[in-house]
Amino acid sequence: MTTTTIATDQDVATLINVFTVTRKTQQPLVDLLTEATEQVMRHHRGFISANIHASLDGTRVVNYAQWRSREDFQAMLDDPTAREHMSAAGSLATAEPHLYEVASVHHV
Amino acid sequence: MTTTTIATDQDVATLINVFTVTRKTQQPLVDLLTEATEQVMRHHRGFISANIHASLDGTRVVNYAQWRSREDFQAMLDDPTAREHMSAAGSLATAEPHLYEVASVHHV
Repeated sequence: MTTTTIATDQDVATLINVFTVTRKTQQPLVDLLTEATEQVMRHHRGFISANIHASLDGTRVVNYAQWRSREDFQAMLDDPTAREHMSAAGSLATAEPHLYEVASVHHV
Repeated sequence: MTTTTIATDQDVATLINVFTVTRKTQQPLVDLLTEATEQVMRHHRGFISANIHASLDGTRVVNYAQWRSREDFQAMLDDPTAREHMSAAGSLATAEPHLYEVASVHHV
């Protein structure tokens, strides 16, 4: 699969991580998350996808990511290299990561 | 299109609305957003899709939605019926809506 799709019947753990930034730190954080995802996260067991979003008002960055399971995501959190990248992100922004399930989808 | 896909080359305005809830208000808010989306939002010009997410820890609800343009989204905000539904959501949770562009996507 080369594109993230959102559906209620997928067996994935969805991570939505909301970073609060400023206009000055938004692009550096996007760059850091992009690099960390390519170099570290995507090589972890259970990684499916990550999508880095920048808010038009310059105040937020959101990572919408899918992992195969909650356990795979948790294992990544315990990896020292991943923690190093998350700590670097933490110096640019406050992060609010939560795991989600898709409750309902709606289309025209 | 019957599934939301995330990509950098789509000409859409992405709304990510993060609601802070409690275990008690999470499901009522999911129900309210589901109903409001079906009855009101999806009939608005420019609506593409909405995806209601419930956090596993019971503290958040996230709507990941796509609109054709920022202007279409703004026009919906000015609609009295839509405002009524948003006000009802506001009585259950605090909302943090922001519009986003997709900065980068990553896959295994």
